Amino acid sequence: MQSQPRRRYPIALLSDFGYRDHYVGAMKGVIANIAPDAPLIDISHGIPPQSIIAGAIALRESWRYFPRRTVFLAVVDPGVGTTRRAIAIETAAGCRLVGPDNGLLFPAAKEAGIVRIVELTSQRHRLPRPSATFHGRDVFAPAAAYLWKGTRPAALGRAVEDIEPLDIAHPRVGGNELRGEVIYVDGYGNLVTNIDRASFMQFAARFSSRGLSVKIPSGASLPLCETYGEVPKGAPLATFGSFELLEVAIRDGSAARRFAAQSGMPVKVYVRK
Amino acid sequence: MQSQPRRRYPIALLSDFGYRDHYVGAMKGVIANIAPDAPLIDISHGIPPQSIIAGAIALRESWRYFPRRTVFLAVVDPGVGTTRRAIAIETAAGCRLVGPDNGLLFPAAKEAGIVRIVELTSQRHRLPRPSATFHGRDVFAPAAAYLWKGTRPAALGRAVEDIEPLDIAHPRVGGNELRGEVIYVDGYGNLVTNIDRASFMQFAARFSSRGLSVKIPSGASLPLCETYGEVPKGAPLATFGSFELLEVAIRDGSAARRFAAQSGMPVKVYVRK
Amino acid sequence: MQSQPRRRYPIALLSDFGYRDHYVGAMKGVIANIAPDAPLIDISHGIPPQSIIAGAIALRESWRYFPRRTVFLAVVDPGVGTTRRAIAIETAAGCRLVGPDNGLLFPAAKEAGIVRIVELTSQRHRLPRPSATFHGRDVFAPAAAYLWKGTRPAALGRAVEDIEPLDIAHPRVGGNELRGEVIYVDGYGNLVTNIDRASFMQFAARFSSRGLSVKIPSGASLPLCETYGEVPKGAPLATFGSFELLEVAIRDGSAARRFAAQSGMPVKVYVRK
Repeated sequence: MQSQPRRRYPIALLSDFGYRDHYVGAMKGVIANIAPDAPLIDISHGIPPQSIIAGAIALRESWRYFPRRTVFLAVVDPGVGTTRRAIAIETAAGCRLVGPDNGLLFPAAKEAGIVRIVELTSQRHRLPRPSATFHGRDVFAPAAAYLWKGTRPAALGRAVEDIEPLDIAHPRVGGNELRGEVIYVDGYGNLVTNIDRASFMQFAARFSSRGLSVKIPSGASLPLCETYGEVPKGAPLATFGSFELLEVAIRDGSAARRFAAQSGMPVKVYVRK
Repeated sequence: MQSQPRRRYPIALLSDFGYRDHYVGAMKGVIANIAPDAPLIDISHGIPPQSIIAGAIALRESWRYFPRRTVFLAVVDPGVGTTRRAIAIETAAGCRLVGPDNGLLFPAAKEAGIVRIVELTSQRHRLPRPSATFHGRDVFAPAAAYLWKGTRPAALGRAVEDIEPLDIAHPRVGGNELRGEVIYVDGYGNLVTNIDRASFMQFAARFSSRGLSVKIPSGASLPLCETYGEVPKGAPLATFGSFELLEVAIRDGSAARRFAAQSGMPVKVYVRK
Repeated sequence: MQSQPRRRYPIALLSDFGYRDHYVGAMKGVIANIAPDAPLIDISHGIPPQSIIAGAIALRESWRYFPRRTVFLAVVDPGVGTTRRAIAIETAAGCRLVGPDNGLLFPAAKEAGIVRIVELTSQRHRLPRPSATFHGRDVFAPAAAYLWKGTRPAALGRAVEDIEPLDIAHPRVGGNELRGEVIYVDGYGNLVTNIDRASFMQFAARFSSRGLSVKIPSGASLPLCETYGEVPKGAPLATFGSFELLEVAIRDGSAARRFAAQSGMPVKVYVRK
């Protein structure tokens, strides 16, 4: 009985199911039935409802901190019941990703290196008579549990060539400005932009002897800081947050509320005169 | 030391304690003390405060997805500190249910088949000097942990004959209408009704050659759909959701907000002229 | 391989990271990498953002319910990136506490008995190139995971003499009154005060033959009750809650909303004429 090696990696779960209903619980119950020894770790179930981009970023920013062979089960699925495919992805990094083929898995899969994609068509690896509205429980959870137990991806369905992309716009350089936008508002009200540290460093290198600041549409000019502690409480700042993306923040406050900001708001890094 | 068989089923937790306070943590700490090897799976701790009906539905809709011998610990307990009983239930299906005797456990227990009910009166199977306000930690968590470890239900207290019922009203047929009501608003704003698929099929069979629609008090007439994808974004629909209950929903939106709806709102299935 | 004893205690997590972002997931991924067998139990990640006092109370009120050797990982860290220290504490009670040195750990550590404090300076026991804004993932999670695995605290950094205190004001006796204040509003809207049962009993003993009531600034006079059941639904009361602290509550309602109350509001126990 003990001949099988112990699997020391978890199934990590991410969804927009929220914390009010039983949806997450039912999904975990299905996993516990198929793979009772799988450690379950929640990344988040509070992804803003049906926000594929927010889910994709949360997955992309967390996958690399998990054990190498982790199975990620991600469900933000506005197209459930339509023709969107259900997929599992094997990656060069070692992890496996399971979820809808709507872009949600794309940024993490691209970073981890896509090795193989299968469409989850096997009737034997889903619940009997799956509902039209809850593939998290009926299709994705069983697939993740079987992968965790060692079922080969090829057994779960037919190979497919590619997946839906999700391209998060890159920041653009225009004259003395690096132009990006808010792509995500986090739970503290920090405004996460698409300006990554690499693009910023490249831009900054051109103006090494001069000061850079950040501007938003309200007209506010924000200091670029390494830490929140560089400004007084209640003051705005721009900093590279835990996403390694430029964030507009208020020390001990909510930038989303202060600037009435949401996804899509332009943010510029500019060279001070 | 390894003579005892490994228990491969979890303790599944459901409550209205929310995610802000330490209540859930303290309850789990008590379990970890008594049954350190028990896998703990949260169904939800975001049940609307003191809503026995919402908790009862969440438990009824999730229990069957868990391993057969799962111990369910459910606490929505507005009567804590009054004379309501604390109980544990053994079921024909194999699972055990622990919680207050206020109807919360009733729908799941009825489905699973009640075999034995005990009132949790044993002083040895609760924390010393239990508080008057937190039986989740002091009474229910120890009972669930002991059951998980193999303590016989009879050791936990005296047998009782029956439990508080919780009857969720059945839909009624009146002429050419099937009349139900909203019994629960989920986290997406979907309006879950008491119209189950079986009642609906029976009603629909009488009018097989004619079209059916759904009507709500705002006057809106909603198409009956298999999936959200059948209507455009932002459009209302009625569909059988993951509860196998008829739900009024907005594709990519909140029906609760759109229709200013709450529990008790009438919903009718009718035969189109 | 099985020569090492199984560790039957968890890592218990508490933070203000919320349930929307991937922060908690990334932190747990780091732990799963270093200590894949550690059971993870969430106390709460819904501590009001940057509220050190709320986090400190939640930790103080829950630590004693956990197994003796539990490692507590607590992160409410408005000073991240400033000069505040990162610490781990060994206690006489057996548990270990990891987090920022900003008062968060103080009340629990004081109760558990401080035996040794180390500043988390070891480069080998944190992620390479830790970010300036996310020490939960990069510094605290690795330290907690290594402690769980058996790494000696002394290996994690240099010993320090004392930690930042967090003094929750004691209630004061003035004439025929015991004067306290609201220090925390819980998720139900209950107003938790700094009036502990011991101070109350001492005060009450002086007036044993006379009735006591509770007064708040709105002028309302509240009955002192053992349980919610002693007042009708919707009525206010004062009771010793699960914190063993006097709470102002509304039966089946929110005292915070009813009395437009927040932390700092005075609450008095007085002798009725």
